[in-house]
Amino acid sequence: HKGLKSKVMNVAKCIKKTGKDDPRRVIHSFKVGLALTLVSLFYYSRPLYRGFGVAGMWAVLTVVVVFEFTVGGTLSKGINRGCATLLAGALGIGAQHLATAFGQSGEPLVLGALVFILAAGATFMRFFPRIKARYDYGVVIFILTFSLVTVSGYRVTQLFQLAQQRLATILIGGATSMLVSIFVSPVWAGQDLHNLVASNLDKLANYLQGFEQEYFHCSENKENSKSSALLQGYKTVLASKASEESLANLARWEPGHGGFRLCHPWKQYLKIGALARECAYKIETLNTYLNSEIQECLEFKCKVEEPCKIMSSESSKALKAISSSMKAMTAPSAAKCHIEKSKTAAKLLRITLETISLDDAELIAVIPIATIASILEEITKSVE
Amino acid sequence: HKGLKSKVMNVAKCIKKTGKDDPRRVIHSFKVGLALTLVSLFYYSRPLYRGFGVAGMWAVLTVVVVFEFTVGGTLSKGINRGCATLLAGALGIGAQHLATAFGQSGEPLVLGALVFILAAGATFMRFFPRIKARYDYGVVIFILTFSLVTVSGYRVTQLFQLAQQRLATILIGGATSMLVSIFVSPVWAGQDLHNLVASNLDKLANYLQGFEQEYFHCSENKENSKSSALLQGYKTVLASKASEESLANLARWEPGHGGFRLCHPWKQYLKIGALARECAYKIETLNTYLNSEIQECLEFKCKVEEPCKIMSSESSKALKAISSSMKAMTAPSAAKCHIEKSKTAAKLLRITLETISLDDAELIAVIPIATIASILEEITKSVE
Repeated sequence: HKGLKSKVMNVAKCIKKTGKDDPRRVIHSFKVGLALTLVSLFYYSRPLYRGFGVAGMWAVLTVVVVFEFTVGGTLSKGINRGCATLLAGALGIGAQHLATAFGQSGEPLVLGALVFILAAGATFMRFFPRIKARYDYGVVIFILTFSLVTVSGYRVTQLFQLAQQRLATILIGGATSMLVSIFVSPVWAGQDLHNLVASNLDKLANYLQGFEQEYFHCSENKENSKSSALLQGYKTVLASKASEESLANLARWEPGHGGFRLCHPWKQYLKIGALARECAYKIETLNTYLNSEIQECLEFKCKVEEPCKIMSSESSKALKAISSSMKAMTAPSAAKCHIEKSKTAAKLLRITLETISLDDAELIAVIPIATIASILEEITKSVE
Repeated sequence: HKGLKSKVMNVAKCIKKTGKDDPRRVIHSFKVGLALTLVSLFYYSRPLYRGFGVAGMWAVLTVVVVFEFTVGGTLSKGINRGCATLLAGALGIGAQHLATAFGQSGEPLVLGALVFILAAGATFMRFFPRIKARYDYGVVIFILTFSLVTVSGYRVTQLFQLAQQRLATILIGGATSMLVSIFVSPVWAGQDLHNLVASNLDKLANYLQGFEQEYFHCSENKENSKSSALLQGYKTVLASKASEESLANLARWEPGHGGFRLCHPWKQYLKIGALARECAYKIETLNTYLNSEIQECLEFKCKVEEPCKIMSSESSKALKAISSSMKAMTAPSAAKCHIEKSKTAAKLLRITLETISLDDAELIAVIPIATIASILEEITKSVE
């Protein structure tokens, strides 16, 4: 009995957390409910129901499968579905017409062969990465509609009426989804991508700041838990590739919104994302030295402390400046001066290293920052 | 005219390449065609058609949306679809029954409210990561079927007949897909995951081998292009997380096959994959030193060459041994001795470094290998 109660409490907590993490999820759920209820009206309002009959079912079906979290996702699926249904319907009617020429016994054979060939061909097309990314859903709907039309066994005249009804209902379902998705508190994939890339840069900046404090022990242990949270943030950047790519794909389908035009260069975000990830790989290496138990030579550490501190704090500032200029969509002019300072510090470090002889593992913990500084430079170049 | 011809040639080349990269893709396309043609027989064989009527359409629909590249994908979608349809159908009939108690005018309101609540609730459930990974498709089908049943406006007696027909056709479509998927040259997600993780370890091993040759220039420039291809292989390991996770999710749905039992510990592969990725991050850092233009101190390089060479070649051998023992599903006993050798070399290196004073960037290029060696040790532990 108690176990059940604690389980229910756990689930409730989990629900609350999921909703709190991103309140748009709750809104999205209500939006789906709204769109479905709107479309269901077709079944209840008798005059419309008589016009469409059972085909009204397709409106409900379209809403359920087309409605996605982001506007780009809904548009991409809706447009894919509409175009694929049109194309496959036309081809299917053509195939029916062709097959009747082969007589009563030849007809099923010809239709069967056509379904086999087109289904196999279209399935193979789904393996091309470019088609997979943008038109995957359309190809599935194409196979579906083509098989349904060709094997239905209706006469061509009946088919035209059926096709008309079905297209109209799909249009209604698709339009309802798209309109609700765009006008009821929209979730733009483009805006999400923009925020994701900017916040990733922020996380890297936070890490570098935390690293400086942690490694050179200039902070008291009081805020230890807070800074270790900062130090873990970069880990999500390492695995951000998949979500960045899918968002960029969806963003391409979206109309202009907020500060973004219709043909915003979304690919640039992927480039910045890739550079941020490279930077995160370096930080990952750096991080192993933070926790390593190699005996440290304190004398040497003191000597390199100054330039290292400058490098990491200036790099961090530069990243923050880039991220905030991205958010404001301006050129990152403030970042350049931080990068200059950090590069000067890197040079200073190299001079220091040449004057003092040393054989210490510390060195390794230090040079990556120089590398990061140079990568930062590249990042700046790529921010348009 | 010429532009068109070259374009067609390009597309043809692309098709050939996609097929050659993985011949199973071509077979998969034919399998989809086969399953669809089998199901289409329902429409042509009149006795069956009379039994099911328009509901036969659902068999075609099920095949198109359920048939996936891997056996696990097909099984997961088929089982999800079957269970969700059953559950949603039962609930929908219950909702209809409940709504009739509210009289002619109250019925649409009650049904509309029920659709809204269940659709919103189910959509919200899709945001939980665990449900997303395993039952996402089932939840979509649940919403779909529930709305279709409740808004269809049929009487309860009619509904039972309809539900029976639809379940039967979905069963036929799902069973056809699963049988074709399992018995006609199956593609097992589990086997794929196994191969992917093993080949990732191989790629890391190749890199370390290539690094040794490249960095210490012990190979002639003849085979430069070949070795640079080896050096690029590790890059795919960096981004392998998403595909590993989806394969592991699908593998869980598969029955025993080949050397794998039903409840094979697929999660272990994710752990090995994560360790391999950590190793790849280190290699990424190492790689920047391979191409860097920092002035190298040759004298120092000579001193550390011997232990470094041993470390990277032994690490490479250890990775290869782990990978081949994974392929043969045996305990990696051969790898342990290579790791021992590489750890001895790492100790030797540290002693060398303590005896000679130096201030050179070389050091950085060397210690990561030591880190890799220690990571290798962890990898061995995790290989069950």
